[in-house]
Amino acid sequence: MTNIAIMGFGTVGCGVADLLTDNRKRISASLSGDLCVKRILDLREFPQSRFASIITHDFKDILEDPDIASVAECVGGTTFAFDYTKKLLLAGKHVVTSNKDLVAAHGAELLAIAKEKNVNYFFEASVGGGIPILSPLHDDLAANNITEIYGILNGTTNFVLTNMSENGADFAIALSEAQHLGYAEANPSKDIDGIDTANKVSILSSLAFGKHVYPADIQTDGIRNVTRDDISIAESMGYRIKLIGRTLLEPDGSVYAYVAPHLVGASSELYGVNGVFNGIVVRGDYVGDVMFYGRGAGRYPTASAVVADIMEAYRYKEKRKELFWEDGAAVSDGSECESRWYVRTAEPCDASYFEEFDMISASCFMTGKMTNHNFRRLMDIFRKKYTVACAFRILD
Amino acid sequence: MTNIAIMGFGTVGCGVADLLTDNRKRISASLSGDLCVKRILDLREFPQSRFASIITHDFKDILEDPDIASVAECVGGTTFAFDYTKKLLLAGKHVVTSNKDLVAAHGAELLAIAKEKNVNYFFEASVGGGIPILSPLHDDLAANNITEIYGILNGTTNFVLTNMSENGADFAIALSEAQHLGYAEANPSKDIDGIDTANKVSILSSLAFGKHVYPADIQTDGIRNVTRDDISIAESMGYRIKLIGRTLLEPDGSVYAYVAPHLVGASSELYGVNGVFNGIVVRGDYVGDVMFYGRGAGRYPTASAVVADIMEAYRYKEKRKELFWEDGAAVSDGSECESRWYVRTAEPCDASYFEEFDMISASCFMTGKMTNHNFRRLMDIFRKKYTVACAFRILD
Repeated sequence: MTNIAIMGFGTVGCGVADLLTDNRKRISASLSGDLCVKRILDLREFPQSRFASIITHDFKDILEDPDIASVAECVGGTTFAFDYTKKLLLAGKHVVTSNKDLVAAHGAELLAIAKEKNVNYFFEASVGGGIPILSPLHDDLAANNITEIYGILNGTTNFVLTNMSENGADFAIALSEAQHLGYAEANPSKDIDGIDTANKVSILSSLAFGKHVYPADIQTDGIRNVTRDDISIAESMGYRIKLIGRTLLEPDGSVYAYVAPHLVGASSELYGVNGVFNGIVVRGDYVGDVMFYGRGAGRYPTASAVVADIMEAYRYKEKRKELFWEDGAAVSDGSECESRWYVRTAEPCDASYFEEFDMISASCFMTGKMTNHNFRRLMDIFRKKYTVACAFRILD
Repeated sequence: MTNIAIMGFGTVGCGVADLLTDNRKRISASLSGDLCVKRILDLREFPQSRFASIITHDFKDILEDPDIASVAECVGGTTFAFDYTKKLLLAGKHVVTSNKDLVAAHGAELLAIAKEKNVNYFFEASVGGGIPILSPLHDDLAANNITEIYGILNGTTNFVLTNMSENGADFAIALSEAQHLGYAEANPSKDIDGIDTANKVSILSSLAFGKHVYPADIQTDGIRNVTRDDISIAESMGYRIKLIGRTLLEPDGSVYAYVAPHLVGASSELYGVNGVFNGIVVRGDYVGDVMFYGRGAGRYPTASAVVADIMEAYRYKEKRKELFWEDGAAVSDGSECESRWYVRTAEPCDASYFEEFDMISASCFMTGKMTNHNFRRLMDIFRKKYTVACAFRILD
């Protein structure tokens, strides 16, 4: 029997305990090995829980127990979780997590410790919740040179944008409905301002391209600037507005990554990804484009991915899996990356003197395909005369 | 260095040789181990190929070479491929393949040999081409009880149906265009009659539910019965017609699997899967629904999956991966499975005396939700008066 510990008995930790216990028979059959939850660390008591007897408040009960082989870190954040994870890896235990903040902030350091100690550090659940994405990217697409990954990586913002689109709701109303339904937190900044998406782009980039791309290197715009009018103008032209996280490998080996709202055309795989769903497209030189789709969050989908990692750590318990990235990615500002743009100004404008620009309405226009460098340069000129309220890329 | 052999230097075999050679640096870095193509078996000569010097016509050059650890079977079919695969597994070599015919026909037997000999038999490329599906199903969703899998598993039929829909083409014309573009073979029966899809349903069912479901146990209807009129009637009600392969675990542990055209509603994940693309939905008790999407065929996407399996066999070269199913699934006829149906008759009909039926036109109606048992019973009555030209399930 292999003993597992869970740190943090909140939404995810509780789902992990349930899944390991309720599907124990299936899990054991699949592994030819039995997994059992021995300890759960939390500051609180849970007298009503079926797991009450194995709750501990002392991290040492896990760290110093030689019978605990793998630990699911469901604490969240980057303080205690960071400290605990380091200590557990150094003690030779496998650690799995859904903690995207921690992996985005300290992944390279933690993977280096795991490698040194010949243990596994896995985090499938940190991107796309229950949707298999990191493991397929690392294993099944391993023969490909990955050139680009982009997707809808945050269900909360996608729910808000879908709601604005389907019900003509204002941003504030759509957001408060998302909060009411439990899809958005009381302080929604992490979702709405694109921070959560940037953490996921950091992880996808680092895994795909082999060097840590930090969130600070990812230009991040959220959806606060998206108005009901933008959405209806976009729709009249056959587009939906989506918050897209994207990372590209430049020809010189540097990485260009950003998070921003896009106008997504009907021919894109992401056009049909609505509500709280996530969709992630991976482009490889041999496989072409593949997409992974599903609910990107929630207790049980996330638990599904955390437990899959616990099982994978069991499969690789003797010889660790070669899942690793180094520190120090070269980051690009994407000057040569080409897009078409949708631009709205605060006042009526005339952009027709730029050959590449097409007026849509009195204060909106679309550009032709141009490099970021040229777009920025033209916008600098344009801003001398007008106030640019928003500028969104177009994904056809 | 680990030596690989490829059997069959056709479309897939050639793609595998190219990928292993051209992306060798990336593959080696990912594995911390070097893979090299040592031998390629084919009856023909390829004097112009860069692989000319390693072509052999003698299977023994592979079977009896102790330096060859893994073999990619790209021969196809179930005669030579079956014989070669058995001999290679018995000789202690790992075998990987995209050969869905062989896995659907003899998977349980080959997996039993692989298990006995402690080697791997992998076939990721047999379903969905380059789309990662079997490995995510087996590894990443391993903690879930899988209850259902359904999808568009054949690009040829989906191309034909999409073409009929978008261009108002007749079946025969859409098919001959698919043949002209190389998406359909001169004898298109395997695709058009649903046989290829049934093979893939056989493999998905067997892997998900742990016992071999043979193609003969899968009721299989193709798309020859779908007319331009069916498509336009379906479209007027917001549906697209798709060939769906589906497998369900019944409450008693038996498996109900079938292949048939469906009317797919706009809210289904499969509605947007058009042209040569495949989309496969997996339903698990914890993860909910996840979808895998991409091009389901083609030399390089398929090679991507075959090489991923070669890499996975390398990772599990000492202790084989627990990928296995037994023989002898209990098969259900799905009597209790519920659907709504679209029915067209050869002549004008009146189905309004059945309470559950709604006339759409003079010779078309839709039913309410009913069990297969009840639908079959009602159709038996109905057939006494009318000729049923087609009956398709509705997937909302």
